[in-house]
Amino acid sequence: MTFTLSGAAPSDSRLFRFARRMDGLKASAIRELLKLTERPEVISFAGGLPAPELFPVAAFAEACAEVLHVDGAAALQYSTTEGYEPLRAWVCEQLYRNNRIETSPDRVLIVSGSQQGLDLVGKVLLDPGDPVVIENPAYMGAIQAFQAYEAAFLDVATDGWGMIPDALRAALASAARKPKLIYLVANFANPTGITTTLERRKELVAIAHEHAIPIFEDDPYGRLRYSGEDIPSLAALAAGRGVFYAGTASKTMVPGMRVAWLVIPDARMYEKVVMVKQAADLHTSTFAQRAIHAFAARPGAVEAHVANLIPVYRKRRDAMVDALAQCMPAGWTWTRPEGGLFLWLAAPEAVDTTLLLERALERNVAFVPGAPFWINREVRNTLRLNFSNADEARIREGVLRLAQAAARA
Amino acid sequence: MTFTLSGAAPSDSRLFRFARRMDGLKASAIRELLKLTERPEVISFAGGLPAPELFPVAAFAEACAEVLHVDGAAALQYSTTEGYEPLRAWVCEQLYRNNRIETSPDRVLIVSGSQQGLDLVGKVLLDPGDPVVIENPAYMGAIQAFQAYEAAFLDVATDGWGMIPDALRAALASAARKPKLIYLVANFANPTGITTTLERRKELVAIAHEHAIPIFEDDPYGRLRYSGEDIPSLAALAAGRGVFYAGTASKTMVPGMRVAWLVIPDARMYEKVVMVKQAADLHTSTFAQRAIHAFAARPGAVEAHVANLIPVYRKRRDAMVDALAQCMPAGWTWTRPEGGLFLWLAAPEAVDTTLLLERALERNVAFVPGAPFWINREVRNTLRLNFSNADEARIREGVLRLAQAAARA
Repeated sequence: MTFTLSGAAPSDSRLFRFARRMDGLKASAIRELLKLTERPEVISFAGGLPAPELFPVAAFAEACAEVLHVDGAAALQYSTTEGYEPLRAWVCEQLYRNNRIETSPDRVLIVSGSQQGLDLVGKVLLDPGDPVVIENPAYMGAIQAFQAYEAAFLDVATDGWGMIPDALRAALASAARKPKLIYLVANFANPTGITTTLERRKELVAIAHEHAIPIFEDDPYGRLRYSGEDIPSLAALAAGRGVFYAGTASKTMVPGMRVAWLVIPDARMYEKVVMVKQAADLHTSTFAQRAIHAFAARPGAVEAHVANLIPVYRKRRDAMVDALAQCMPAGWTWTRPEGGLFLWLAAPEAVDTTLLLERALERNVAFVPGAPFWINREVRNTLRLNFSNADEARIREGVLRLAQAAARA
Repeated sequence: MTFTLSGAAPSDSRLFRFARRMDGLKASAIRELLKLTERPEVISFAGGLPAPELFPVAAFAEACAEVLHVDGAAALQYSTTEGYEPLRAWVCEQLYRNNRIETSPDRVLIVSGSQQGLDLVGKVLLDPGDPVVIENPAYMGAIQAFQAYEAAFLDVATDGWGMIPDALRAALASAARKPKLIYLVANFANPTGITTTLERRKELVAIAHEHAIPIFEDDPYGRLRYSGEDIPSLAALAAGRGVFYAGTASKTMVPGMRVAWLVIPDARMYEKVVMVKQAADLHTSTFAQRAIHAFAARPGAVEAHVANLIPVYRKRRDAMVDALAQCMPAGWTWTRPEGGLFLWLAAPEAVDTTLLLERALERNVAFVPGAPFWINREVRNTLRLNFSNADEARIREGVLRLAQAAARA
């Protein structure tokens, strides 16, 4: 069965061809390799999955039953694009309590996962060739979402303290066109695990304000801190001005509902993103929004769940850091993240981690090669490890296998 | 709180400006008016809502409990972009049983409502200015989804038997560029309620094959037939060749889960749409997919629910048609749909239904003016009525009020 009789298949859109071409450079081969990680004998550090054994299944069973008992018909009906109002009010409360972000429900848009927030903002703002400032390396989902609108990434060097303000200044000074957006993950970034310092955050906000460029602060992991002190979000430091802030239920509750939120401080921008969301999927699942709300609205429920997660994830992070220190060959380095889900490794320059993945899979251990996280640069010797989805024994065993593969590289 | 300090807000993308300009022509003022329909004293025929009092709430409570009991962790975890495999297998079975569409799970993509299917296919196929063949008048959600990629609509006249093949031939002959897609709702179309005849379907498929243009067959209402005989889908008549087929749980089960499916017969096209969906929202809610599957997989559950809906909706359609015949002033005509959710009315030419809506709202009855459903034409004297969301008494009372408003127009 094909799309045509004549053999003349409909041509792809320019947007699609662009995204495919960019993606094709690095990611396709890796995607093929990663399919092998689904074999049960493989210890996979490749995904970004929370630990399913810690999901609050019983509490969600109660939340779902409650939602259908209290107003089942409304929970199963169409609803507004903006999202379930009580959930938006809850988001405002917790953003104020945890992040000192002051906002109101009419500036909170419920989205079908943070990924959709990236897609919608990209669609509203980006023309082909528009620069988007981005950390380097950066979250692959953001790269893909903005590539789908032909963004020209203006990558800014990142060190162990986050995006480097002088590098941002230099990049803005050299940019042929004014960037439409500055994208970053300030807390325990994906893929590096790095946290942007308070001083850096203040400086980045000041630069963004000076140049009148909005920031997209993507904060999926902020509540998952295992050591160190919380740092105010860029949105709080900016008093909301010019910062899109994305939060999600995926890491502090459950990812499978696909419920996240986007704070859009400007009223006209909010309307624009709502209009684009309406054309994209009408609204996020009414039921999923109400189930997340029913779970989250119980006093202390999210806090108790996060308090359960933190010691487990902390031990896993520590187990991975310790195992790396014990096993990895000379010349390898790695980050020691204060939270989140990921560690980032750099091998000696001669090592190609895509080739290493093939050897690692022979030993039944998997990771994500770092190449597709890098923008405008060919960097072959980095890789990302997830530590949230395997217990400590599997982490120790998996790192040992990885070290053995690395020793032969 | 604004996005900038300097007052220089980031400029909108060309895509967004285009969609906004097209939308702004007709729809914005109407959207403002329709906000008034939410007042409880208003009898609204404006939305496209199924009857919530008929939702299988108890069965969904069981389905949700079952999903969490059987494998709660998997139901709350991330999952694949393609969708839950058992649900895709169920879709294949029911498409074969009800529509004689032969396909396989690896050609079925689960989407977050049919609206997302339109958005994704638009993103893969459409460049600015690409012609899309469309019925006239047409479903507003499709217009919005394709406008978001700057489609140039090639509108084809539609009569009481569907899109007119000779008009399609003439449109294709005159098109400066080959269209990328032919979009239609063959069963009980939104907004007109019209069903495309078998002869027309065969002819439309033959024309599409001859010109090697894919069809997007949007079939949300096909199972909701109240009179007449089922007609084979275009996808079945085409033996899958060159037809995207969209089905949904929204009308035969519940809309609030946001679960629909897109059949993409070409393997390479399937991969492309999957890639675009991944960048748009990773995947549709795992929990919602499993809940829909748990409900649908019980032998006879969907059939029993549809069998409950049909006599109720049939009576409501009949009540509306009868009330219109009794009450409406001379010069008004309307369709008598064999299924679906909508009736379409044409007033005498001098009547502007957007002005009529203001007068109708004074009498606490609402509808959707027809203007935004029309493409490339200014037609002021049509309107759409929904008959699924109000009981017969309210339908009679609402139509009486509408007739009184119309008599003064």
